[in-house]
Amino acid sequence: MAGDGTDQRALQYEQTLMYGRYTQELGVYAKEEAARLRESGQRRSVSERSRTFDLLEYDKGRCAKCRICTVRCQKFLISRVGEDWIFLILLGLLMALVSWVVDFCIAICLQAQKWMYGGLDSNVFLQYLAWVTYPVVLITFSAGFTQILAPQAVGSGIPEMKTILRGVVLKEYLTFKTFVAKVIGLTCALGSGMPLGKEGPFVHIASLCAALLSKFMSLFGGIYENESRNIEMLAAACAVGVGCCFAAPIGGVLFSIEVTSTFFAVRNYWRGFFAATFSAFIFRVLAVWNRDEETITALFKTRFRLDFPFDLQELPAFAVIGIASGFGGALFVYLNRLIVQFIRNQKAINRFLMKKRLLYPALVTLLISTLTFPPGFGQFMAGKLTQKESLVTLLDNRTWAKQGIAEEFDYIGHSQAWQHPQVNVFVTLVIFIVMKFWMSALATTIPVPCGAFMPVFVIGAAFGRLVGESMAAWFPDGINTDGTIYPIVPGGYAVVGAAALSGAVTHTVSTAVIVFELTGQISHILPVMIAVILANAVAQSLQPSLYDSIIRIKKLPYLPELGWGHHEKYNIRVEDIMVRDVRYITLNCCYRDLHNVLLTGHLKTLALVESAASMILLGSIERAQLQSLLSLQLGRPRRLEFIRERATAEKKRLSVVSNSDAEDDHRRASQEVRFQISTEESSFSPTRPVPQKPLKPALKRPSVVERPIDIPIGSQDHSSNSSLKNLFCASPDAELMEKNNNVESPVSPDSRRQSKRVRISVVEPPPSLRGFFGDDDVVEDDMTIREIAEWEEMQLDEQVNFNNCKIDPAPFQLVERTSLHKTHTIFSLLGLDHAYVTSIGRLIGVVSLKELRKAIEGSVTVKGVKVRPPLASFRDSGTSSSENEATELHNLWDREKRMSLPGEHTPPESDEKSQ
Amino acid sequence: MAGDGTDQRALQYEQTLMYGRYTQELGVYAKEEAARLRESGQRRSVSERSRTFDLLEYDKGRCAKCRICTVRCQKFLISRVGEDWIFLILLGLLMALVSWVVDFCIAICLQAQKWMYGGLDSNVFLQYLAWVTYPVVLITFSAGFTQILAPQAVGSGIPEMKTILRGVVLKEYLTFKTFVAKVIGLTCALGSGMPLGKEGPFVHIASLCAALLSKFMSLFGGIYENESRNIEMLAAACAVGVGCCFAAPIGGVLFSIEVTSTFFAVRNYWRGFFAATFSAFIFRVLAVWNRDEETITALFKTRFRLDFPFDLQELPAFAVIGIASGFGGALFVYLNRLIVQFIRNQKAINRFLMKKRLLYPALVTLLISTLTFPPGFGQFMAGKLTQKESLVTLLDNRTWAKQGIAEEFDYIGHSQAWQHPQVNVFVTLVIFIVMKFWMSALATTIPVPCGAFMPVFVIGAAFGRLVGESMAAWFPDGINTDGTIYPIVPGGYAVVGAAALSGAVTHTVSTAVIVFELTGQISHILPVMIAVILANAVAQSLQPSLYDSIIRIKKLPYLPELGWGHHEKYNIRVEDIMVRDVRYITLNCCYRDLHNVLLTGHLKTLALVESAASMILLGSIERAQLQSLLSLQLGRPRRLEFIRERATAEKKRLSVVSNSDAEDDHRRASQEVRFQISTEESSFSPTRPVPQKPLKPALKRPSVVERPIDIPIGSQDHSSNSSLKNLFCASPDAELMEKNNNVESPVSPDSRRQSKRVRISVVEPPPSLRGFFGDDDVVEDDMTIREIAEWEEMQLDEQVNFNNCKIDPAPFQLVERTSLHKTHTIFSLLGLDHAYVTSIGRLIGVVSLKELRKAIEGSVTVKGVKVRPPLASFRDSGTSSSENEATELHNLWDREKRMSLPGEHTPPESDEKSQ
Repeated sequence: MAGDGTDQRALQYEQTLMYGRYTQELGVYAKEEAARLRESGQRRSVSERSRTFDLLEYDKGRCAKCRICTVRCQKFLISRVGEDWIFLILLGLLMALVSWVVDFCIAICLQAQKWMYGGLDSNVFLQYLAWVTYPVVLITFSAGFTQILAPQAVGSGIPEMKTILRGVVLKEYLTFKTFVAKVIGLTCALGSGMPLGKEGPFVHIASLCAALLSKFMSLFGGIYENESRNIEMLAAACAVGVGCCFAAPIGGVLFSIEVTSTFFAVRNYWRGFFAATFSAFIFRVLAVWNRDEETITALFKTRFRLDFPFDLQELPAFAVIGIASGFGGALFVYLNRLIVQFIRNQKAINRFLMKKRLLYPALVTLLISTLTFPPGFGQFMAGKLTQKESLVTLLDNRTWAKQGIAEEFDYIGHSQAWQHPQVNVFVTLVIFIVMKFWMSALATTIPVPCGAFMPVFVIGAAFGRLVGESMAAWFPDGINTDGTIYPIVPGGYAVVGAAALSGAVTHTVSTAVIVFELTGQISHILPVMIAVILANAVAQSLQPSLYDSIIRIKKLPYLPELGWGHHEKYNIRVEDIMVRDVRYITLNCCYRDLHNVLLTGHLKTLALVESAASMILLGSIERAQLQSLLSLQLGRPRRLEFIRERATAEKKRLSVVSNSDAEDDHRRASQEVRFQISTEESSFSPTRPVPQKPLKPALKRPSVVERPIDIPIGSQDHSSNSSLKNLFCASPDAELMEKNNNVESPVSPDSRRQSKRVRISVVEPPPSLRGFFGDDDVVEDDMTIREIAEWEEMQLDEQVNFNNCKIDPAPFQLVERTSLHKTHTIFSLLGLDHAYVTSIGRLIGVVSLKELRKAIEGSVTVKGVKVRPPLASFRDSGTSSSENEATELHNLWDREKRMSLPGEHTPPESDEKSQ
Repeated sequence: MAGDGTDQRALQYEQTLMYGRYTQELGVYAKEEAARLRESGQRRSVSERSRTFDLLEYDKGRCAKCRICTVRCQKFLISRVGEDWIFLILLGLLMALVSWVVDFCIAICLQAQKWMYGGLDSNVFLQYLAWVTYPVVLITFSAGFTQILAPQAVGSGIPEMKTILRGVVLKEYLTFKTFVAKVIGLTCALGSGMPLGKEGPFVHIASLCAALLSKFMSLFGGIYENESRNIEMLAAACAVGVGCCFAAPIGGVLFSIEVTSTFFAVRNYWRGFFAATFSAFIFRVLAVWNRDEETITALFKTRFRLDFPFDLQELPAFAVIGIASGFGGALFVYLNRLIVQFIRNQKAINRFLMKKRLLYPALVTLLISTLTFPPGFGQFMAGKLTQKESLVTLLDNRTWAKQGIAEEFDYIGHSQAWQHPQVNVFVTLVIFIVMKFWMSALATTIPVPCGAFMPVFVIGAAFGRLVGESMAAWFPDGINTDGTIYPIVPGGYAVVGAAALSGAVTHTVSTAVIVFELTGQISHILPVMIAVILANAVAQSLQPSLYDSIIRIKKLPYLPELGWGHHEKYNIRVEDIMVRDVRYITLNCCYRDLHNVLLTGHLKTLALVESAASMILLGSIERAQLQSLLSLQLGRPRRLEFIRERATAEKKRLSVVSNSDAEDDHRRASQEVRFQISTEESSFSPTRPVPQKPLKPALKRPSVVERPIDIPIGSQDHSSNSSLKNLFCASPDAELMEKNNNVESPVSPDSRRQSKRVRISVVEPPPSLRGFFGDDDVVEDDMTIREIAEWEEMQLDEQVNFNNCKIDPAPFQLVERTSLHKTHTIFSLLGLDHAYVTSIGRLIGVVSLKELRKAIEGSVTVKGVKVRPPLASFRDSGTSSSENEATELHNLWDREKRMSLPGEHTPPESDEKSQ
């Protein structure tokens, strides 16, 4: 029965991997797991003292000296330079190394393919086999490896980082496994020569690196545990990711800001620049040390002339590139989404691919590599060039087609690939653009770690080159009529095209800066800027950015941007969009209310109000906290205590047990306990989240939290009712219990042994409960199902004691008249998931991301025409509203006066909520 | 008596102009004036309907047709392209034109000086006179012109823009007069050849341009009136300012973000790029059209070699430049502040300069120009070069001093100026750097519109050149040992130095980007980035940025940055820093309470709570609103109404007046009223803020708002008490009354005429009062002082009617446990001035910028050592605090239960506040 629910989830999980779908449920699951982990961390700190003894025994001699030394070193370092520097430098260094190693491996892979293909030139069929098999194997390996190790490593990672920086906890995306899967998967994927990019995954890898480094550094001190600091570090890491990928520190910072942030704290700017510069520096220095370069220069250095980079009259051509790129970019995003949706919606294909899940990558790779096979169709599209080589040739500063004749071509190096005896260079370029366009859109749907930036960049460069070559053919002596002949530089057009198309796809302006840093020349700044801006203007009005599109496809929680110029949004207020039916708990509620409230609703925190009558908001409590409160109340330990008490009462009546016997019992029990803990220590160590097996991790994860109905009825408890509640409330104990059951024999009739296990899995009951366990813990659980049900009903009627519950006393509050604009600003800045709406201290509603999203998307259609919310029309005139306010206030005052009279304590609006 | 107070303020105002001091009082004054204007605007919209008739009469035939046509055109344009585009394009176009014209005029001025100096080469004394007189005259004119027209145009304007973008209203800084003063003053100042910059003022000019354009555009439609939109436009304008000044769109956007913002909305990014690119494009196109350039290239184009820009082993030298620039930048900021403070603190100098206020600029200019006189000391420091020429020569790609011998120098163009027959080029450079350093620091204190960026940039370039030349002398054949000789490029060092020093002074990283855009080469990206980052690291740890330093000197309202790495700040909470003694008014308060509350406190809004017992926050009301409420209650119209009513009551008793007579009276009165309005129309037209005379505007401004004690007792009223209250409450009526008195004869015994004037100055009494004015307004004010006092006492005891008062129902609220970090974030993002602190809906404190500033500055000393706030130490342990919370909550619950019993309505904490 347990397998059923888990299997279903695992299937969903696999679907996610396949096409990158992200179900809401999975998100909830991830969040709750994260909450659980956090809680167990807290629990551990409470029980720290009691466990030091065991730890000392356990750790003795292992690395105590070494640790002391490290701590001293680290203290010294912190006092000397400040911890942020160290972190950023380490991050930059690490990422530069990773980037360089990945590049190195990719180069080796590509060389190997070339070597194989070159060596078999006697037989075309063998050559084809070699050409095709190699990428298929690599991609299949990459897809398989990623899926097995960490399915969340699939794709670019920028959408996920955007979501994480918005404040949504996606813990599974920042684990070490993901790091390994992403790096190895990416290397293989790019080594295959498919039109895939390195940039997006590098943003994710850098963030992973930062998260892991942060975790590692926190071993040396508690400074790295602040959450808002971590977010800032992640923002810097994104900059590092782009920076070390392209050796473009400035462009990296700007691109990462544009792509991942809505609001940017200028104080973080510095961090990003620092780390990205250091990283780019090391990345390029490694190339120099490896003798690839003589000195530090740009990655794709161009050599355009400086005196007269372009004529003023060429600007219309650049503008045309910009506008066309805008349409092209929108088309690319649309095509990409179309492919994903097509495959997902065709049930037959879907079912087939789901079974053979490595088939899809293999098929796609086979198709693409067949088409690029150099002796085949590839000869018309420079198929034998790698992505990097294509880019280098496209940015070449010589003209390929003077006067339209291909013969005058300078055949040096890779540029030869563009030449075809029968076919014009223009045709080659057009075929290249068209083929690469759909190939890239298709390739980026393969479930491997990959980005789309670089392929798009190359396509853009080819398009620019095409326009440039045409211009050069039309004006062989340049446009300038002042005497001096300045021939047209098609390479400059390629630069402009690359920036424009990649800008259009990602909706960023900073691709311009990346282009300058990549080419090492900034002379084309104005054409590039003009083209990028035009491309953005066109693309933004047609389609969302590629990353936003993926966010929507994957159903990640997101918040759409407020369109600029949509000033009418300022007229929608929170009261128009808020949910008025808020789930809340009152200060004097009983456990039954808690139970009922937890059964409904979806927000991760619940409001705590003073009373249903006053509705004054006191704070918010996390759902997990309440669940553990409830499970503590209904849990086995408390029931055992109850039994013990009952027994004690009986004992008092009988008075037959001797004192010395009890003491003996005690000593024996405590020894056993210690032994038990030391063997099973790892299962409640908070640094290891869940017991994970290398294969199909989703299957192994306990998944009881989500569906209280599907849960198997545990065998260690006689009462179905009690166990249901226990499991639903999903405290770590309950889950651990279930896990233990899975591993060992399902039925263990020895109640004595079982009671010990339970005690261990609970790890640490609250101090008030702890005392008696040592005294005599050999209570037999002899209650019948009926008794347990009765006992639970009794427990549920008790008033909740919030003493051990962590209450957030400052949940974010809005007032009902807060404008949509302000709300959006606050939500995006503070990364809120929801905010309570209060009116003069009373809770009257809640706004979550969902409502906000609906309000923004619902009120503005694609064309910018606004649909007014039904309530907004009432308040266009300023005077009447202010009069209304005063009237309302006076009504309130009257009400208050009335209310303060005794015996009148039921305001109408809270009736239906106080269950 | 009135003259006394006004004079004193005018004196303060002049002091401000002189040394850029900005008194708190002046800020308050500006704010209140702004509030008054806003209010009169509102008032006008209320009375709009009643005035349309007059307006139609008044406007008839003036430009009705033209206006209709324009409205249609504008509607068409809006429907076609969207209004933001138009605005940004217009802004860019305008600023490009302004920038180009200013540059053109400056070039002419400088040429004129050269021509004069060159023409008089027969006589050194005459030459000296010409060399010195010309800048002195120009600077003196600039200083005088600026002071007379708009003293707020003095200085760079970036600090003010930073303050405005923080949300502080400094309306006087965004007027047309300021624009004219700034443009003309800047042109003259830069035309004088002093070491002053164009960049800072251009940020201000662009913002002025945007504000004026916004105002102009709002004539065509109401879209431009949204305040948050205006702020966004100002942010874009700052980018345009830098962009069109340096033809550096990317650097402009980034620099303006770094310099003016704390948080940046990425959605504004696009706007900035769009406008700045357009502006830079037009700016450079103008140069091409003017035949200055062949095509669009960089402003200070360099021609360094591309293949091997620098050797890896040169990096330490670049790092040295960075670190030294960091110290230099900090020194520059310190020196600048020292000079201002020295002059201000030396009372004798101060008094003397105050009298002859053009003497200081003249003296400084005389000193500087004497020292740069080319045949004199100037020959050792390339004195005859203008700033632009110096920069061009410094960025030259040839080496000046090969093997340390000056003879091998290539004497082409202006580079000759650096050569001196006796003196080494190194000595020239050192002298140049040292002299220019203090000269620039001194020159930027002159009260003319000027920036410090460009001088600092030149000094940095000179320093870089010095290091570069030294390197070239030490390694004549370059450092590289691989065979190929790559000589060292000192020009590259100059680029690095310029970026580093300007980055250090302004605390920005984006100077790197500006440098690339200015030189048109990006090959030195890594050295520049390294140097800029090091310079920033050093400078930021020593001194505030130049702009922050000026903000502190001018005492503008500001919010210091949270230092990075100061994680311990997260532990301070709002409750530690808030002011617990909040001024508030209750819903059922009487006018006397209002009066008392208004006498104290300084925040511009007051909290409105439900009652002193419950303290539940209902909203906030602007001080000005309350003042007008109070003045309405105690004002003459109401008193007249009272008299009228008394008279009516008497009339009823007597019953002697006929009905037809009254009607006649009515008709006559209403005619008179219309006439009266049309002649005095301008005095309550909201677009004309205050009657301004060209000379000494501060003297003419009504200044009654500030000091209730200094105010002369008006003569139109018999009762000193009443008039005092009227004036203190500073409603527009009161001020207008006083103004009218100033202009006309002080005593006007004709009570009939006077009563009419009063009616007009009130403009529009609430509808409830309006009716009877038409009926019979010929009431004689025959009350004695004693009667008036009695009447006022009676009025003060009435309950306040908030019906006509604009209440902000959503003032910003924090909870007492909000962290300092979060508070800082919210304050900077939303540009708050203050926020109320509430605990479960009850107002318990208020935090204003002042407290926040104190908390941030007080808790961290310069060295980063934290002084813990007294309360912070209590809550380091997480568990205890959460227990405390729950206990508190339960206490509260108990209290509430107790409170809800009848007759117990005085919680202790609100006793002392309920006046």
